[in-house]
Amino acid sequence: MPLRLDAGSPTFERDFAGLLAMKREVSEDVDNAVKAIIEDVVARGDAALIDYTRRFDRLELDAARLRVTEAEVDRAGAACSAETLSALRVARARIEAYHARQKPSDDRYVDALGVELGHRWTAVEAAGLYVPGGTASYPSSVLMNAVPAQVAGVPRIVMVVPSPDGALNPLVLAAAKIAGVTEIYRVGGAQAVAALAYGTATIAPVAKIVGPGNAYVAAAKRRVFGQVGIDMIAGPSEVVVVADRHANPDWIAADLLAQAEHDAAAQSILITDSPELADAVAEAVERRLSTLPRAAIAGASWRDYGAVILAKDLQAAVPLVDRLAPEHLEIECEDAEGLAARIRNAGAIFLGSHTPEAIGDYVGGPNHVLPTARSARFSSGLGVLDFMKRTSILKCAPESLRELGPSAIALGRAEGLEAHARSVAVRLNLG
Amino acid sequence: MPLRLDAGSPTFERDFAGLLAMKREVSEDVDNAVKAIIEDVVARGDAALIDYTRRFDRLELDAARLRVTEAEVDRAGAACSAETLSALRVARARIEAYHARQKPSDDRYVDALGVELGHRWTAVEAAGLYVPGGTASYPSSVLMNAVPAQVAGVPRIVMVVPSPDGALNPLVLAAAKIAGVTEIYRVGGAQAVAALAYGTATIAPVAKIVGPGNAYVAAAKRRVFGQVGIDMIAGPSEVVVVADRHANPDWIAADLLAQAEHDAAAQSILITDSPELADAVAEAVERRLSTLPRAAIAGASWRDYGAVILAKDLQAAVPLVDRLAPEHLEIECEDAEGLAARIRNAGAIFLGSHTPEAIGDYVGGPNHVLPTARSARFSSGLGVLDFMKRTSILKCAPESLRELGPSAIALGRAEGLEAHARSVAVRLNLG
Repeated sequence: MPLRLDAGSPTFERDFAGLLAMKREVSEDVDNAVKAIIEDVVARGDAALIDYTRRFDRLELDAARLRVTEAEVDRAGAACSAETLSALRVARARIEAYHARQKPSDDRYVDALGVELGHRWTAVEAAGLYVPGGTASYPSSVLMNAVPAQVAGVPRIVMVVPSPDGALNPLVLAAAKIAGVTEIYRVGGAQAVAALAYGTATIAPVAKIVGPGNAYVAAAKRRVFGQVGIDMIAGPSEVVVVADRHANPDWIAADLLAQAEHDAAAQSILITDSPELADAVAEAVERRLSTLPRAAIAGASWRDYGAVILAKDLQAAVPLVDRLAPEHLEIECEDAEGLAARIRNAGAIFLGSHTPEAIGDYVGGPNHVLPTARSARFSSGLGVLDFMKRTSILKCAPESLRELGPSAIALGRAEGLEAHARSVAVRLNLG
Repeated sequence: MPLRLDAGSPTFERDFAGLLAMKREVSEDVDNAVKAIIEDVVARGDAALIDYTRRFDRLELDAARLRVTEAEVDRAGAACSAETLSALRVARARIEAYHARQKPSDDRYVDALGVELGHRWTAVEAAGLYVPGGTASYPSSVLMNAVPAQVAGVPRIVMVVPSPDGALNPLVLAAAKIAGVTEIYRVGGAQAVAALAYGTATIAPVAKIVGPGNAYVAAAKRRVFGQVGIDMIAGPSEVVVVADRHANPDWIAADLLAQAEHDAAAQSILITDSPELADAVAEAVERRLSTLPRAAIAGASWRDYGAVILAKDLQAAVPLVDRLAPEHLEIECEDAEGLAARIRNAGAIFLGSHTPEAIGDYVGGPNHVLPTARSARFSSGLGVLDFMKRTSILKCAPESLRELGPSAIALGRAEGLEAHARSVAVRLNLG
């Protein structure tokens, strides 16, 4: 049975704090192994990639076969069902349309002193996209990671994906083509991350690495951060559903289970002011579980990390949601908009009863790469800005330097940085 | 003597790669010490802060004295010169005006299928600002870190600053007041970072930590990342000046030294197509060094990490600049604008001969917290967006769900996530 918390209970604050502090991930300590792999790739390049691929993926490669050919990609596409390819194209178009609106504007202006100011956005020169192998290899994630990079204008979008025993998911290759990936390499693990960050003879280095992966991949991303940019380290997925007595308990149960089927460490939470809804949802979850293919995973997630929280009223749910800072937040109640406007911390909000979170996973348009583990308190879902960076621009004329100079000189001297002061003063004939 | 590289030389590519690979920082391995300090602060809260402050800052505190009082801040302000305070106010106003234009817009629209989409930006609930003690305690950095947070709308801006032997820099306190910092605590080091991330009885936790610090502070920020957001880990400062024969060699020398005086590990590089300018700048640097208060530091930086690069022409400088990805880029040549437009990687660009980089350090308006160590390839200077996060919004009506649903169901099934598919199908009476 999942946790049941009642805001009226004297132990509620303690219980809720316990829910917040719940650790859903065992962090494997693979850092030493990863450090050695990275150093080896830096030292030996392609030869190291080939060795690790033999060892971890049981696949014999040579440098010429690291790259997946266009012909292979086309064959993969031909092996996919027309219905799925069409759905991927729908998804791509919608993700592209949504993200195109995120493209930032440059700014340039002259202020009252005549100083020219502004900023300019540029795309990173190359982005690397890690795609896991095996069961966690999702074509939708290929779209969600690659399309924003393409919208940003990144000229090289490089995908790495392990092919255990030589197998590659055809849908992942098809999605890569649909998403505009420009190069694909059949390597995975920490060695692939190292190759993207430092480059080898075959794989030119990138400036930014995104995409999910196992503990080795996560540790490698942490290690190469600084050499390249990285996205967030994603944790297990989570959803909070806020609902009132008008909501459909069976639909909510379906949404809680969609989240739970991802991973036994996923978390699904219902917050409601209706004890009747709480009971009905809990019952519907059990009923639906019995026919789910991934019932073992979803059931474990719901039992170990699920929670039903009874709040005094829905306004009282707002601070609870902000403390949970969920990756996904569904609001299924009267005045869902009004409630959403009061929430500070959530990765993505799904409004109303006809917006199941799964729509957002695939074809809504917004990104499904979202901050987990309460990091929505300080971070955002993946977007176009993650593949761009801003350069500030400043230009003084002699007159505006004369206006600003004395303040800069004063501050330079107050900070004991005389050479700073002099670099201004010399231009004003002040010394 | 600094490095001198000539693009016409057969060894140029190797020499330039060597310059790029130059390590300017010895990374101290303090991670185990920092781990223990963080765990202690999590376990013992204020008591741990008090113990570490006694040990590292030689200062006896109790919990009530951790916080710097308003009266202390006011006394500090009264001890500062009117000229410096006025310069700080000029700086604050200009930083605020520049950053106000960075405030992002929310977006909300309805697409052709009737799907409502958008995103909403919210400020983080609280930001922590680390300010170093002693000589690296710069009031300008207080403004540069706190003003963007205030512009973002962050309600709590919490500053921590060590006070070795009880001493606090009055200018830093005055700057904090001018910048709108809401709380100040006299703690520093990894213990202060831990307190900001996890909270103690006296210091409520924040969601984001920014600001420079020593190796312990940097290691602590890396460790608490995930629990809170952090800004970049700043390395030694650097400038690249691109100039032609029309530029003033004495002014350029002054700018190279302003960068060099920060730190013996700072780096100043001149790229020019004029051998005469290269010689004149090198001479002017030596002449100026002889009268600088921080000549030892600036001289060491110039000797060990400085470089003069002769390029065939200024267009040939563009790819060199992009590979260096400098924190600061000054362009002092004809058609500086045209050249700037071709640069992809730079933290901040200073255009023309009357824009010394030091103006940008203090009163230009743009932020002086900028990506170092080639990270301008993938990251931006500090700004308002660093204190905000974006929540995506999605709302389907029954009709638009009917349009989108089949694609989502197809992709859910293609990915083996049947509960995803069913959460959509159940709303469409499809099962």
